[in-house]
Amino acid sequence: MKKPFKKPEPGDKVELIVNRQSHRGILLESHDSSVLLLKLDNGYNIGFKKSDISEIKLIEKKHEENNKEDKRISGKKPLVDLIMTGGTISSKLDSSTGGVKWLINSKEFFKIYPEIFNIVDIRIINPFMKASENMSFKDWARIAKIVGKSLNDSQVKGVIITHGTDFLHYTASALSFMLGKVNKPVVLTYSQRSSDRGSSDSRMNLVCSAHTALSDIAEVMLVGHANLDDEYCFALQGNKCRKMHSSRRDAFKPINANPIAKIFPSGKIEILRNYHKRNKEKVKIDPLYNDKVALVKFYPGQNPDILDYYVKQGYKGVVIEMSGLGHVLTEGKYNWIPKIKQAIKKGLLIYAAPQTLFGSLDPYVYSPGRKLEKAGVVFLKDILPETAFVKLGWVLGHKEWRGTIATKIKMLENINNEYNERLGTSFFI
Amino acid sequence: MKKPFKKPEPGDKVELIVNRQSHRGILLESHDSSVLLLKLDNGYNIGFKKSDISEIKLIEKKHEENNKEDKRISGKKPLVDLIMTGGTISSKLDSSTGGVKWLINSKEFFKIYPEIFNIVDIRIINPFMKASENMSFKDWARIAKIVGKSLNDSQVKGVIITHGTDFLHYTASALSFMLGKVNKPVVLTYSQRSSDRGSSDSRMNLVCSAHTALSDIAEVMLVGHANLDDEYCFALQGNKCRKMHSSRRDAFKPINANPIAKIFPSGKIEILRNYHKRNKEKVKIDPLYNDKVALVKFYPGQNPDILDYYVKQGYKGVVIEMSGLGHVLTEGKYNWIPKIKQAIKKGLLIYAAPQTLFGSLDPYVYSPGRKLEKAGVVFLKDILPETAFVKLGWVLGHKEWRGTIATKIKMLENINNEYNERLGTSFFI
Repeated sequence: MKKPFKKPEPGDKVELIVNRQSHRGILLESHDSSVLLLKLDNGYNIGFKKSDISEIKLIEKKHEENNKEDKRISGKKPLVDLIMTGGTISSKLDSSTGGVKWLINSKEFFKIYPEIFNIVDIRIINPFMKASENMSFKDWARIAKIVGKSLNDSQVKGVIITHGTDFLHYTASALSFMLGKVNKPVVLTYSQRSSDRGSSDSRMNLVCSAHTALSDIAEVMLVGHANLDDEYCFALQGNKCRKMHSSRRDAFKPINANPIAKIFPSGKIEILRNYHKRNKEKVKIDPLYNDKVALVKFYPGQNPDILDYYVKQGYKGVVIEMSGLGHVLTEGKYNWIPKIKQAIKKGLLIYAAPQTLFGSLDPYVYSPGRKLEKAGVVFLKDILPETAFVKLGWVLGHKEWRGTIATKIKMLENINNEYNERLGTSFFI
Repeated sequence: MKKPFKKPEPGDKVELIVNRQSHRGILLESHDSSVLLLKLDNGYNIGFKKSDISEIKLIEKKHEENNKEDKRISGKKPLVDLIMTGGTISSKLDSSTGGVKWLINSKEFFKIYPEIFNIVDIRIINPFMKASENMSFKDWARIAKIVGKSLNDSQVKGVIITHGTDFLHYTASALSFMLGKVNKPVVLTYSQRSSDRGSSDSRMNLVCSAHTALSDIAEVMLVGHANLDDEYCFALQGNKCRKMHSSRRDAFKPINANPIAKIFPSGKIEILRNYHKRNKEKVKIDPLYNDKVALVKFYPGQNPDILDYYVKQGYKGVVIEMSGLGHVLTEGKYNWIPKIKQAIKKGLLIYAAPQTLFGSLDPYVYSPGRKLEKAGVVFLKDILPETAFVKLGWVLGHKEWRGTIATKIKMLENINNEYNERLGTSFFI
C-alpha cells in the first residue's frame, strides 16, 4: 500500500523502497534532515537520501515504553555505570544550528545507541561535558573518584567512560595511577566519527565496551576499533597506548605492549596476553595531583634556557622527550648539561622519556647518556612521554613522595605496568 | 695442516673450524679481541669466539694493494661522494679505551666496509664528526653546501651521507628544503648497531645506499633496513619519515607516505611509488636559516604562558604539536586563544602540526579549530611536526618570505612533497 511520505519516528520498524530494492530495519535518529538512517536486521546502519526513497511502510510501531527513562534499568541485565564526559561519542549534530550538541541524558543516549541496552542495564553519570583538549588534572581526579565509587558498588559489574579521543590516553594514564589495581573492568571508549555518520565507529565501540565491562579483565582499558573493518575492537592497556592518527577509526595503537584482548561485537573475547583479574578487593582512590609539571620535546639546536622558564614559574618537574636512547645536545654553546645541573640545584626534577615512542631509553650505550645521568636526569625506560608526564604530576601530588630520591623511587616503581619488566623488540609497527 | 693459533689479519681469506664445522670467508676487523668476525661467501657476517675455534687455515693472503689509499678510486666504477658526519655508522669500539672512536679516513672505512667498493668508487668528504643530537642548523647548511657541490659535479653519480640516527630525520628535512628538487640521488644512511657487532645493520645499509646512489631516483632519501630480516632496505622520503624505535634496525618508518622503493643488497630495486627522476639540471643551494624557531608539544592543562617565553626571547615562529585535528585548550583559565592572539600581535608566528604524527589536521570539523584559525594559527595539514619546525626556520631564513602573509604562503607551499596533495587514510601502522 503506497502511502504519502511522512516523517517516521526513531524506533519504528520500517521497510524502505529505494531504487526498487527493499530495506527493512529500525529507524535511528538522523541529524541530517534529508537522510533516513536505518539499522538493518544484520546490524549494519545505512543512510538513505529521502529523495531516493520511493516508499516507506510501517512494520511495527516502536515500543512506547522504551521512551520512559526509568525503563533504562530493567533489573534483568547486569548493571554498568556509564560516565559520560563529552567528546564526539557523546555528541550529535544539531541540525538547527549546524553545530555539535551534547547528548545529555540516557533517553537521548538510548535513541542513538539502542544496541548497548540488549547487553547491559546502564546507569548514566554525567559529571561534565568537555572536549578532551579542555580536560585538566582536576577532571581526571573527578572521573577517578566517580569510577572508584562505582567499582566499590557491589551492584555494578563494570564501568564505561565515554570520552573525546584527542587526549584520551592522558586520562587513561591518570586513571591507571589514581585507581591503581582495579577490581572490575574500567573501559574508556570513544568515537572518531559522530553517531550520525554512516561510517561511525561509536556503536561497535560501545557494544564491545559493554562486553568488556562484563568481562574478567580488571584493568583500565581503551576499547575501540582494531582496524578499518567492523569486525572487532581491541582492549588496550590505558597507560601504554596513544592516539596515532588524526581521523582513522583505529587511531589508537598499543605502544611497547600487546593489546589485552580482541573484543567482538558478538560478545566473544579473545585474550591476547596476561591481565589483572576481576576480584573483590575494595579500590582505594588516590586522586592527588600537582600540576606544576611540564612535558618538553627536545629538538636539535634547542636552547636549554627553556629550563629557566620552568624554574622561574615554580615548576617542580619536567619530562623531556629525549632521543630514543636518552640524549640531548651536550656540546657547544647550547650544551644542556650545565643548565640541567643548575635547574636540578634549584629544585626542578628532570625526567627523560623516548621521543621515538617505541623502544626503551638506554643511556649507558654512549657517553652523553652517562653524563646526563650524572647530571641528575632520571631515565624512565620504555614509558610513553605522555604517561611519564601524567605520572610525574601524580607522584608529586603526594607529600610523602617529594624530594629527589623519594620521587625517583616512585617514578621508577612499576605502579600499573607502565613499564615492561622485560622489553623485547617485538612491539613495533 | 694444523697450525698454532695466530692473530690473522683483516682482509685474509681463511677457513675456520668451529665445533668440527668448516667456515670460509674474509676476515673482518673485529673490535672484540675475543671474537673473530668472518664475512662468509654468502655475504653474511658471523662472529666466532676465539676459544671455540679449533683450527684456522689461511686460504688467500689479502691483496696488499687494497691497503693503499689511492686505490680507493679505481676509475673503473661509478664515483659516489660519501659525506661522513658521524653517528654509530662512522664509529667503532676502541678496544683500548672501551669508548667509541670515529672512523676518520677512507682506509679505515674500507677495512670495516669492504663490500661497498665492489659497487662504487668512493670519495670521502668529512666536514665534521658528531652525534646527531649535537647537530644544529649550521651543520645542516654545511652538509647542504657540500652535497650541492657534489650534485653539480658531473663526475659524481650520487651522494651518500652517513649520519647518526637520533635526529637524522631533521637533517633529511633540512636538505629537502635547502637543496629543493635534486638532480641525482641523495642518500642518508646510518646504523643502529655498530659495525663490530654481529647484528650490525651498517653493511647492508651501506650496500643498499650505494645501489640507491646509482639509481634513477633523484630524491633526498633515507636508506636502511625495512624490517628485522636482512633481506632489503627501504628508500624513504627524507622529510616524511621519523625514527620510531630506540633500538630496532628498522627504526625509521614512513609517515603519511609510502616508501619510494625496496633496495636489495643484490642491486635489485623495486619501485613502490612515483619519484623525481635523475636529470641534468644544476642544483641551487639555498642554505639560509633562522634558528629563532621552536617546537612545542601541547599537553592537557598546559599553561599558555609558555608563549610569553618565546616572545620575550625574540623567537620569530613556533610550531605547536596540537591534537590530530588541530586543537589546544580553548576554555577556562588556561584558554590559549587570548594568549595566541597576543603572541601573534607581538610578532610570533604560530603554526600547527598534528601530534598524532599520522593523518592530517582538519581544524574545520569542530569550533575550537575554527576559533584558533581566526586567532591566526596556520594549520600545516599532514606535515610531520619535525619537518614543520625545520621548514619554518628555513622559510624565516629568507628576508623575502618574512611577514605573516608571505611566511604563511611559503609554509603552505608544497616545496618538496612535505604535504600530500591528497591524503587518504591508507598510510598507517
